[in-house]
Amino acid sequence: MVKNLTIVKIGGNVINNQLQLKSFLEDFSCLKGLKILVHGGGKRATEMANSLGLSPKMIGGRRITDQANLEIVTMVYAGLINKNIVARLQGLNCNALGLTGADANVIRAHKRIIEEIDYGFAGDIDEVNDSMITTFLEAGLSPVFSAITHDKHGQLLNTNADTIAAELAQALSKKFKVELIYCFEKSGVLRNIDNEDSIIEEIDKSAYAKLKEDGIIADGMLPKLKNCYEALDKGVDIVRIGSPQLISNKKIKHTTLKL
Amino acid sequence: MVKNLTIVKIGGNVINNQLQLKSFLEDFSCLKGLKILVHGGGKRATEMANSLGLSPKMIGGRRITDQANLEIVTMVYAGLINKNIVARLQGLNCNALGLTGADANVIRAHKRIIEEIDYGFAGDIDEVNDSMITTFLEAGLSPVFSAITHDKHGQLLNTNADTIAAELAQALSKKFKVELIYCFEKSGVLRNIDNEDSIIEEIDKSAYAKLKEDGIIADGMLPKLKNCYEALDKGVDIVRIGSPQLISNKKIKHTTLKL
Repeated sequence: MVKNLTIVKIGGNVINNQLQLKSFLEDFSCLKGLKILVHGGGKRATEMANSLGLSPKMIGGRRITDQANLEIVTMVYAGLINKNIVARLQGLNCNALGLTGADANVIRAHKRIIEEIDYGFAGDIDEVNDSMITTFLEAGLSPVFSAITHDKHGQLLNTNADTIAAELAQALSKKFKVELIYCFEKSGVLRNIDNEDSIIEEIDKSAYAKLKEDGIIADGMLPKLKNCYEALDKGVDIVRIGSPQLISNKKIKHTTLKL
Repeated sequence: MVKNLTIVKIGGNVINNQLQLKSFLEDFSCLKGLKILVHGGGKRATEMANSLGLSPKMIGGRRITDQANLEIVTMVYAGLINKNIVARLQGLNCNALGLTGADANVIRAHKRIIEEIDYGFAGDIDEVNDSMITTFLEAGLSPVFSAITHDKHGQLLNTNADTIAAELAQALSKKFKVELIYCFEKSGVLRNIDNEDSIIEEIDKSAYAKLKEDGIIADGMLPKLKNCYEALDKGVDIVRIGSPQLISNKKIKHTTLKL
């Protein structure tokens, strides 16, 4: 029988809110079955860069990762945030294993090709090592991914956490029935960004095209939903987008994406 | 047949020297058989603390780990240094897996009891999860440990890397024939600290007592050798102390410890 696997992505705004994070980790630790957590941390990395007198450069919501900023995201994502989450999950009896893509070579990427913009040490994913991740899951572990990958030639790379979650979901849907859940500071995909009650509860492919055309899906939601539809196209069973409460209560209003 | 396992501890001075680190990682990746790396990183953590306007407090060569310094060592050891080493080993075809004690609950510790000195978030080890580490080794992985542990109640702790190496060696000697190698900036235990040629090539327990009595083993070497003898007492096959070159060439002059 094909086992269920839940992959949860948690955004940086939730991580920076101690109360929200605490309750999210409690809920995550209670999730039944196999599970993987993917976390961001951009806000904390920006604070750290500022403390060190650096100002991270962003273009179109994406970080330009020069050498100094790569060191900062490596410290903050893979060190500070990842290990604190792992320790807290362990305290909640969830056997967490913190990973970057370099660890056990689980996610191999390449430095983004320079076209119009030089993103620096930004990594685009080439391969997810689903058999090694399956080994970890079968050993009773819950992998916790930070948004760092590598190129298998010694170079660490900064990779968008939404993309990591989607790529993991795709690769692991060969072996598992995968549910992918994006938790962030909004209650779902909103028709009107200023109104938390305007959640669009179901989006299918034709609605998706229309929402993009009408400019309702815009800015940061564009790459997020693009990732989701790629995942659904490649075999992921279901994708949900909503608040962190969603993982303990599927009846809470949120957005479900379908093909 | 009992398999061989090599556990190598590499000190912070070697890590801070790019040329030495490069050649050490090349040698480590070529080591035959099962292997584990344990690394320090105190110098880099001190530099980072200084960059952030903090001055780490040391007493008797041990760091006093307050909350701010715990965040720094978590970032620097488990993030920056650990993930760079892992990525570089992956580039050398060594399937490295970076770990803190919290990951997969591999090393559980408790916050050091306050006696004369309050060391803050310093962790003394309670238990090494040798069966989980064996699972990783049997999956073809080489664990790379940073000097961070946890208390299984959500708290990360700073633990001396020499001690981690010795405790891993002890716990794993139940299942493997363990060789423990400490690599640092000296060529071995020196009779005269200013003379690199004064290596003491063999020390047994009675020589050890005499060397302590004569004040030849002093300062930082005292806890290092104490760790080594505890490891030997508990079943570790052999302990060597020397320069990083030692792991590729056992004929190079170094110190071998025996019971």
